[in-house]
Amino acid sequence: MSNLLAIDTATEACSAALLVGDALIERRELAPRRHAELILPMIESLLAEAGISRRQLDGIAVGRGPGAFTGVRLAISIAQGLALGLDLPVVPVSSLAALALDAPVEAEQGDSAILAVIDARMGEIYAGTFRRSVDGLVEALGSESVGHADKLVLPGNRRWSVVGSGWDAYREALAALLPATPTFADGARYPQARAVLRLAAPQFASGGGVLPEAALPVYLRDKVALTLEEQRAR
Amino acid sequence: MSNLLAIDTATEACSAALLVGDALIERRELAPRRHAELILPMIESLLAEAGISRRQLDGIAVGRGPGAFTGVRLAISIAQGLALGLDLPVVPVSSLAALALDAPVEAEQGDSAILAVIDARMGEIYAGTFRRSVDGLVEALGSESVGHADKLVLPGNRRWSVVGSGWDAYREALAALLPATPTFADGARYPQARAVLRLAAPQFASGGGVLPEAALPVYLRDKVALTLEEQRAR
Repeated sequence: MSNLLAIDTATEACSAALLVGDALIERRELAPRRHAELILPMIESLLAEAGISRRQLDGIAVGRGPGAFTGVRLAISIAQGLALGLDLPVVPVSSLAALALDAPVEAEQGDSAILAVIDARMGEIYAGTFRRSVDGLVEALGSESVGHADKLVLPGNRRWSVVGSGWDAYREALAALLPATPTFADGARYPQARAVLRLAAPQFASGGGVLPEAALPVYLRDKVALTLEEQRAR
Repeated sequence: MSNLLAIDTATEACSAALLVGDALIERRELAPRRHAELILPMIESLLAEAGISRRQLDGIAVGRGPGAFTGVRLAISIAQGLALGLDLPVVPVSSLAALALDAPVEAEQGDSAILAVIDARMGEIYAGTFRRSVDGLVEALGSESVGHADKLVLPGNRRWSVVGSGWDAYREALAALLPATPTFADGARYPQARAVLRLAAPQFASGGGVLPEAALPVYLRDKVALTLEEQRAR
């Protein structure tokens, strides 16, 4: 039995989750630009509610992006600092996979798939394709990408569920790529720490995890591509 | 006797310093864009050399800016995470004050002063004015600012020493503001964790320091003002 902490600040959503034994509690807030001030109090509030000390933690899971540069960098740095301080392993989890985990659960049929899309601003989306795995989690069907919604390349012959803020912004472009009208998970706009934690838990259980300095962010975007919101936040 | 760790990544310089008793050791590297990968190994290397565990640390000092957004955010997040994990107080220190501390030591004469200037790109500098205090450290003569070098307002009638990368970039504009040719500290281009540590030590000794979530960055620049280098790093 282990105590695991997870955080995700890759998007407009700021969230933290704590698994103590079988009990999962979480904090989440839609608070663009306030992640840096919110995340530590969220962590402390979770520990207080669970009645455990930080020294009783066994691992740190972190949404490693893709997402806003500032938010991804924040989550990774906080996770690295915490893990270094507490001498704990880190499991970095794809924020798109975490988002995909919140797609409606369906039977693991061979042809059903999940498209997770995060609005990347500048006319682009972060996108990843996943399917439910037999353990109820998700596994990637291909590599993650950033680009214009109408340029997205999808594996064919699937029944798609779509999740994420990218759907709100690029519904028409995305719908045109899909063979049929997809199911849209109305509740799941952003990756949540709870989902990061669920995806990381099996890795911790099997002794996985990396040293803090090896917990690396994934931005996908490497070039000059600041969103207006990120620019304003500077 | 206390064991203090300090980091500064606010500029092109990435540095960490560790005070164990009376012995100060440091790591530093000029490595624009590689701060995120360097800073944790630097910390671990310092702890290993000193032969102490992170749990023997008594406080974390951090250069809180002003400086590059990405670098300041990194240092603050790592310091916050570490301090939260280790249950330690944080002392945020002005990166300009740290720079000023590396100005040539002179007698504390009433009319001598230190101008610390960091190249802020986009034609601007971060600037702060300081004087030596009786304890050999520095104290601010006024508030810190960001702006065009030729718009800088300085307290009059001082004999100036200038430190920092801002001098390289805006030597002529700055010299025109000064009543006489200043002394320039050729070695001190960037704030160093060693100086952050020296400035923070008295605060730790007197029971100072703040909770991790209250260790706040200072950017000075609030608006859209990304340097090209910062943009390239994204």
